[in-house]
This record gives sequence, structure tokens and C-alpha cells, in this order.
Amino acid sequence: MRGKPLATIISAGLSKFGRREGVYARELFAEAALSAFHRVEKLDPSKDIKAAFIGQMSEAYEHQAHTAPIAASWAGIFPAPAMRIENACASSGSALRCGIMAIMSGLYDIVLVGGVEKMTNQPTPEVTGILATASDYPFEQWNGMTFPGLFALMATVHMHEYGTTEEQMAAVAVKNHKNGALNPNAHMQKEVSMDEVLKSRLVSWPLKLYDCSLITDGASVVILTKPKLAKKLSDNYVHIIGTGQAQDTFCLHERESLTTVKAAKTAAQEAYKMADVRPKDINVAELHDCFTIAEIIGYEDLGFCRPGQGGKYVESGAPDLKGSMPVNTSGGLKSKGHPVGATGTAQIHELYLQLTDQADRRQVKDAKIGLAHNLGGSGATGVVHILKGS
Amino acid sequence: MRGKPLATIISAGLSKFGRREGVYARELFAEAALSAFHRVEKLDPSKDIKAAFIGQMSEAYEHQAHTAPIAASWAGIFPAPAMRIENACASSGSALRCGIMAIMSGLYDIVLVGGVEKMTNQPTPEVTGILATASDYPFEQWNGMTFPGLFALMATVHMHEYGTTEEQMAAVAVKNHKNGALNPNAHMQKEVSMDEVLKSRLVSWPLKLYDCSLITDGASVVILTKPKLAKKLSDNYVHIIGTGQAQDTFCLHERESLTTVKAAKTAAQEAYKMADVRPKDINVAELHDCFTIAEIIGYEDLGFCRPGQGGKYVESGAPDLKGSMPVNTSGGLKSKGHPVGATGTAQIHELYLQLTDQADRRQVKDAKIGLAHNLGGSGATGVVHILKGS
Repeated sequence: MRGKPLATIISAGLSKFGRREGVYARELFAEAALSAFHRVEKLDPSKDIKAAFIGQMSEAYEHQAHTAPIAASWAGIFPAPAMRIENACASSGSALRCGIMAIMSGLYDIVLVGGVEKMTNQPTPEVTGILATASDYPFEQWNGMTFPGLFALMATVHMHEYGTTEEQMAAVAVKNHKNGALNPNAHMQKEVSMDEVLKSRLVSWPLKLYDCSLITDGASVVILTKPKLAKKLSDNYVHIIGTGQAQDTFCLHERESLTTVKAAKTAAQEAYKMADVRPKDINVAELHDCFTIAEIIGYEDLGFCRPGQGGKYVESGAPDLKGSMPVNTSGGLKSKGHPVGATGTAQIHELYLQLTDQADRRQVKDAKIGLAHNLGGSGATGVVHILKGS
Repeated sequence: MRGKPLATIISAGLSKFGRREGVYARELFAEAALSAFHRVEKLDPSKDIKAAFIGQMSEAYEHQAHTAPIAASWAGIFPAPAMRIENACASSGSALRCGIMAIMSGLYDIVLVGGVEKMTNQPTPEVTGILATASDYPFEQWNGMTFPGLFALMATVHMHEYGTTEEQMAAVAVKNHKNGALNPNAHMQKEVSMDEVLKSRLVSWPLKLYDCSLITDGASVVILTKPKLAKKLSDNYVHIIGTGQAQDTFCLHERESLTTVKAAKTAAQEAYKMADVRPKDINVAELHDCFTIAEIIGYEDLGFCRPGQGGKYVESGAPDLKGSMPVNTSGGLKSKGHPVGATGTAQIHELYLQLTDQADRRQVKDAKIGLAHNLGGSGATGVVHILKGS
């Protein structure tokens, strides 16, 4: 199946990301779904969509499990089957893989994939505790480890081994906030200066407040169909030509190296091979910048630059909106926000806009091939998708 | 694809079900996986199994989300991709559907599907609260509703409309405990008398302690492959010939009727049609007896008897081990136990044993076609699978 479409995205939708007070996750999900439905007038969603795969990380935020049928039915998908997929921050990236398999299996012609997380109703220390459940309970949480701590460990090793600097990490934040300022759905639509990032409050050295992604409420949705049905249903469609997923060791202490996320690297190799493209063929990418160091390691794992060169790569301007390989045109998790369960398909939403020439002020000229890089936890899960404009 | 195998089960495994002190969910999962691996000597699991789909209901029991890569890697499935599927008590029934789609998609030749829940480390009132997250937070939990309460509502309407009696519900418990007493993996391997059930402590009228399934630790695993590869890999394989899943309204107050679980009925119709079989063709079935009334409604929804006749059906002896349609030969959720995330594939494990003539003292003679009926929550999710011996 090298280079052939696996499934085709005929629409995508996003809720407004941010601190969304007074709404439940189900309402955010319906908002994202409606915005996807509005793009495909030929579709009768409640009749035509035959199954839903919905990413969500935690039932702790709203004391609500079994979320998929709730979210699906609030979006009008009923009585079609719905299931929740959970792989920490890679939940909806993983859900997308289920959607692709559902289409490829021949069981369904049209399915909905999405993700949602309602986080801000819990106080921040509680959110930190909930997020920590994506790390290992006996080996990491029990010792007081939190996510900023885990990624700070990776950052310090990267600094030690390759001379990566705090300024280089800050440059990721500056770039992504610049992009996010152009995205009307982003949580934090404002630019930040290098100085502001470097002087922001220390979270876990060397990571400062502006090195961290946002605690955000939001939802995202994409609609998939068989490649041959796409044209009949939508004027703007994008093919998925590569999908990859792999595991790295769950705990950091078991890894051979802390300067690479092997799960993402393996997933990328699988997706590149399936899509029959190379890193230099990618025109636009959404990377999992849960912390600025994660984007730097991402450049390397995806082959955008050589190992250890990620810091220099961002300094070079290559991943800028007008650079040779624009990364996180949406603003990324850093500025658009990181409602964990929604992040995977929110990345796909941005690529859908880019590859159908609908990204407005963030549009990358002549974008033909896009890549999404979605991590779960501290990288125990890596999911990579490659998309191609039609 | 009517009547054709969708995917084939080449092995199945179960952990010992029960109060398993001092072990984590990951260890239970590895135990179930190993017991499945032992049945297929031709397989090199860590090399040949290419993906894992793992059902688990709640991260609250062990403060552990992102469970799939942990469970998979402890079972030796690494670095193959793993994802968690959550649909309350239908989590691993739903995971099985992902496994089937993964095989049918052509992306993978061999995958592992399973489920796990470690529940008894939490005190019972806490477990009741965790289970309640599978019901609606604003509309049900908020009003103090718990699962025994929800099923008690169904039971009272069934009694009112059809004259179903407490004795008929108790007969389900008596039958299932009789079967469970023959199952060395069951949590509660003992028979109970009608009198013991009727005199047991009231939980939520008309449901008494012995009308309720057990809070259990356990895990279950099945290994799937393409139908044409099965013979090469295993001497004992079973084809999946039908799969169905649907939603009913999430909350009971929105339903047209409380005496049927429409999601299960719709799922069954879909599975019967796909498998090209009728209820009378089924030789052995595992039903979701989370409460005795659920099995009675299950008989009716699956077409084993007419609506309203479920009480009389169990009294007739038809679903007994030696009856015309043995139901819950494993002991069911009632006696084998109900580690929620593990239940869906634990049902499949029992059918695998029955259809490969390995069920020992519980063996149903000449069992050729089996059915599994798995509910999520109070029936918002219904999953039905139909299996055929080779």
C-alpha cells in the first residue's frame, strides 16, 4: 500500500480552545462536530456517520467515564456505535488509527474521529495530579515525579550532550506563540518575546512557565471516508497516506537515551515508509510541543535535522511560518492549547486546513504534504500520521 | 460478508479472577497473556503480535492512565503499538471490535486484544463511586444514582409490566453460581441456593446482594489473526463471524422502555445479520449478568425468548448447563466475577473454550456457534459477537 490513500478526511472541526467555563466536555465536542458538519453540506451526519472513535485522557476531570456515547450522541451521532480511546496525550492520534482501520476494514464507509478534554474546572494542582496518571504509578508518580519534571530530565540531558540552550527552547515558544496569535481558535492568541519566556516563572529547571503547554478546554473532530467516496462528499478533502504507532519504555529510567523518543522515531519510520515520502518531502508539520524541549527532540526524531541539532534548527528559522519547514502553524500545544484528549485530531484539523488552502493568515504556500506527531505520556506512545492534499 | 469469518481467534487466556492482593493490573494482564501464549507454541508473541487493544474502565483504581503500553509491555508486546479502549463494562468487547478491524484492514496479521481491571484495592464505597462514572454525571450521579439503583429501576418496571418475580431473578444467580462452581478461574466457586439469594442483604430493591455481580480483579486476553492464517498457527481456532455495536440513550430517563436494552438488541440484529445465523442457531452464550435482571432482559433482547418472557425462560431450565441454550457456562459476571474492563474478552475466552471442546466439566456438547453479549453502563453501549467453531 506504499503511497496509496488509506482513508480520506472530508472535513474537520474545532471548538474554541481556552478556559471554557460553564460547559461540559460533551458540549465542547458537539461544538467541534458542528463546525466539521458545516463544511460538508452533502452529508447528513446523524444518518451517514456510522461509527465514532473519541479520544479522551481522563474521567477524573468531570467524574465521567463512558464518554464516547455521551459525546457522540450530543453531536447527533446516535445510535451508531461510539468508543473512547485512551493513550494519554496521544488519545485522539490513536483514535484516528482506529478510524482508519474501521474504514480500511470495509465495515464502515464514513466514521467520525475526535477528541475532547475539559480540564479547567479542576484546580491546577489537581490537574497536575491527573496528568501524572499518564506516567507510571509505582515507579514515577510515587516518587513525586510530574510531567514538567520528566521533560526537564530530557531537557537537561539534551543540554549536557548537545549544548542545547535555554534560549533555543525559548525560541520554540516564541515561534509557536507568533503562529497562535494568528489562530482565532487558539487559547492564548498573543505573541511572547524571548525575554518574557526566559524571565517567566521557573516550573522545573530548565523549563519555565512559557516552556510549558497550556491547561485548556477543547475538542476536535475529523470525518473520514473511503478514498473513492471522498470526491462525492466534499470539495475539500485530504488523504491519509501514512500511519505509524509504537511504544518506547514506559519509564524514563529504562531508556537507553533520554535525548530521543524512540516511539515517535519508530512511528515516523513506519509512516514514512507507508506513505513513500521522506522528511524533506513534508511541507507543514504539527509537532507535540507539550514542552518546548519536546518539539526540539521531535525535529530530530522525525528527521527534519540530525540528532542533537534541534536547538540550532529552531534558531535557523527553518520551522518558522515562512521557513522551509513550518512547524506548529496552529500555535501548537504551547499557544493553541493542549486539551490532552483533543490534541491528536486538533493537529489533524490544522493540517486539513493547510492542505486544503483554508488556513487564512497562517496558510503555508503550496502545502501538499503534512505530518502530525503526537506523543503519549513522556513518550511511551508515539503516533505519526502523514497527509496529502488532493 | 454474510457468514464469512471476519477474523479468527487462535488463542485465549484468563488470569485467576478474584481478590488478588499485592499485584498490579499489569501483572494480572501478563498472567492472562501468558496463559494465552502457552496455547500457541508456534507463535513468538513478542515478535509476531503486531498491535494490542486493551479494555480498561477506570484509571481511578490504581491512579494509572495510559495503561495499554504498560500492560502490553509487561506481557512482552513491545515496541508494538498498544491502545486502551474504554466503554465502561463493554471496554474489552469494544476493544475486540478494534482488533477485528485491525485484522480486516490488512494493516496487521496478528493482534492481541484483552482487558483488565484491578478493583479490590479500593474500599467498596469508593468502587461504587468509580463504577458510577459510567453513568451520567449531571443527570444521574449528581442525583445519587448508583448502578444497583439503575438496574433496580429496570427490574421494577419488568416486574410491573410482565409479572417477573424476585424468584425468577434469583434463579439466574442460582444457575450461574452452579456453573461458576465448575470454573477454576472463577472468583466465587460455590453454589448458592434460591433461599440464600432471596434472603441475602438488600442492596436496592428488588436487587439483593446475590443479584449483583462481584467486585473482582482479573484480566483476559484473546489473540486474533486473519482467517486464512489460523490453521498454520493453532490447532484450536474459532472464527468471529458477526460483530455488532450500538448506542441506547445514555440516561434511563430518556428511554422509551426500561424493559429492553435497545443498544444490545440493535447490536445483536447487526451481528446476526452479518453472521447469517438466527437465535435458535446459537449453542452457547455468555450474557452480561451484571445484575440478574440484566440476564433476563438479555434473553429477550437476543431473541432467545419473547419480550417479557425472560423470567419464565430461566425457570424453564433452557439456559441451564444441560438445557437447550446454555447461558453463562463460565459462571458469568455473577460467579466468575466482573473485573469490568476484562469482562468482554473473558466472555470470549469462555466461548473459545466451549467451541474448541476445552471447557472441561462445563463443556456444552457439540457446541458450534457461540454468542457474547456485553453491556456498557446501564446499556448506553451494547456489543454482541458471534463465534463459530472451526
